Amino acid sequence: MSELIRTGQPALLFDLDGTLVDSVYQHVLAWREALEHEGIGLSVWRIHRRIGMSGGLFVRALDRELGIQITADQAERLQKLHAEGVRRRLAQIRPLPGARELLARLTEIGVPWAIATSGRAETAHEITRLLELPAGTIVITRDEVPFAKPNPDLFLAAAARLERDPRESFVVGDSVWDMLAARRASALGVGLLSGGYGREELTAAGTYRVYDDPADLLGHLDELGIRS
Amino acid sequence: MSELIRTGQPALLFDLDGTLVDSVYQHVLAWREALEHEGIGLSVWRIHRRIGMSGGLFVRALDRELGIQITADQAERLQKLHAEGVRRRLAQIRPLPGARELLARLTEIGVPWAIATSGRAETAHEITRLLELPAGTIVITRDEVPFAKPNPDLFLAAAARLERDPRESFVVGDSVWDMLAARRASALGVGLLSGGYGREELTAAGTYRVYDDPADLLGHLDELGIRS
Repeated sequence: MSELIRTGQPALLFDLDGTLVDSVYQHVLAWREALEHEGIGLSVWRIHRRIGMSGGLFVRALDRELGIQITADQAERLQKLHAEGVRRRLAQIRPLPGARELLARLTEIGVPWAIATSGRAETAHEITRLLELPAGTIVITRDEVPFAKPNPDLFLAAAARLERDPRESFVVGDSVWDMLAARRASALGVGLLSGGYGREELTAAGTYRVYDDPADLLGHLDELGIRS
Repeated sequence: MSELIRTGQPALLFDLDGTLVDSVYQHVLAWREALEHEGIGLSVWRIHRRIGMSGGLFVRALDRELGIQITADQAERLQKLHAEGVRRRLAQIRPLPGARELLARLTEIGVPWAIATSGRAETAHEITRLLELPAGTIVITRDEVPFAKPNPDLFLAAAARLERDPRESFVVGDSVWDMLAARRASALGVGLLSGGYGREELTAAGTYRVYDDPADLLGHLDELGIRS
């Protein structure tokens, strides 16, 4: 490792759902509705624990856990039904406490940041609208990379767009899949409880530090060595 | 301790939501809706982590965590709005995998069991209907005891109705509040992941054993020393 790592001002790579926006439970129930429409009964907690991972891997997990074979047609229908279900629930979705303030603060003190989500561009853009992001914000979606989380592609693409080494970056996410992807990207994972995972689940996935939500992270930026 | 404890055939005291019925996420979003209606913004994960505890303690937690003072009138309105929200979502609620089969099996092999829920009678009875319970099933609701979980009253009342010592009983629940109430009742807590808590959260609350859901518990009754 010959290059110099700029440890003084790391970049922050954010997941979206459950990390900046309080949308996980709406995603969960939209998936549940889509699966029921296709005649697939799956307990809600099992869906919750798969949110944020690649849709393709989710479908494989269905096969493994329920012995349900999903055809390519059906997978496409499920994605469409899920997107419609989220759209119908958009009015219920709110930014998480401190999300806008955290992003504004990072911009103000010159910390580079970007968003990287396993969601498709269409849904992601409807959800990011709630955050009133500044023009030029980098938002990497599923459509732009070969593999979604827990593969590291989304976070690697976000770091590349910021012209940062992932090793100079923190990945901020609410799910085990974010934390696993962070490790594969050689970034440190910062876990937030705001997606509904427990602290210990995040810790067991190799999380560097856990906070409640964006407001709590904003109040503890110094613990990540981020200086104003 | 002079009485003889009948260890060969323990009683099972079941929580309802998240333990026998896949209704936690609907409860969560119904609370969220009720709170928003009263102008109270609370992140969905924080509501999730309070489900299953007494409504009175939930209101105190609101005060502590958000500095929100809830009047008695408002508390009553919130309860009413929540009950309406659950009723509107009833069509989405399903029994958890294995729930009916587990209860039928216990009846068949002569293991006494009962249900004890922090919910009010009205909502609880609409939800238990999904389980097609045998006539005479004991269902203890919030209305019948001075204090709901994490106080032990609900489980103590259920054990008393079965004429069992709580020390001969397992409490089966999905939430940390069930597990804390079990310990106060001198019963052992059996945790299920089907309410969306993580395994480690349940373990940290003193759970004796953790299973995925009622189907998984049914497949491992021998681990609790329950014999056919």
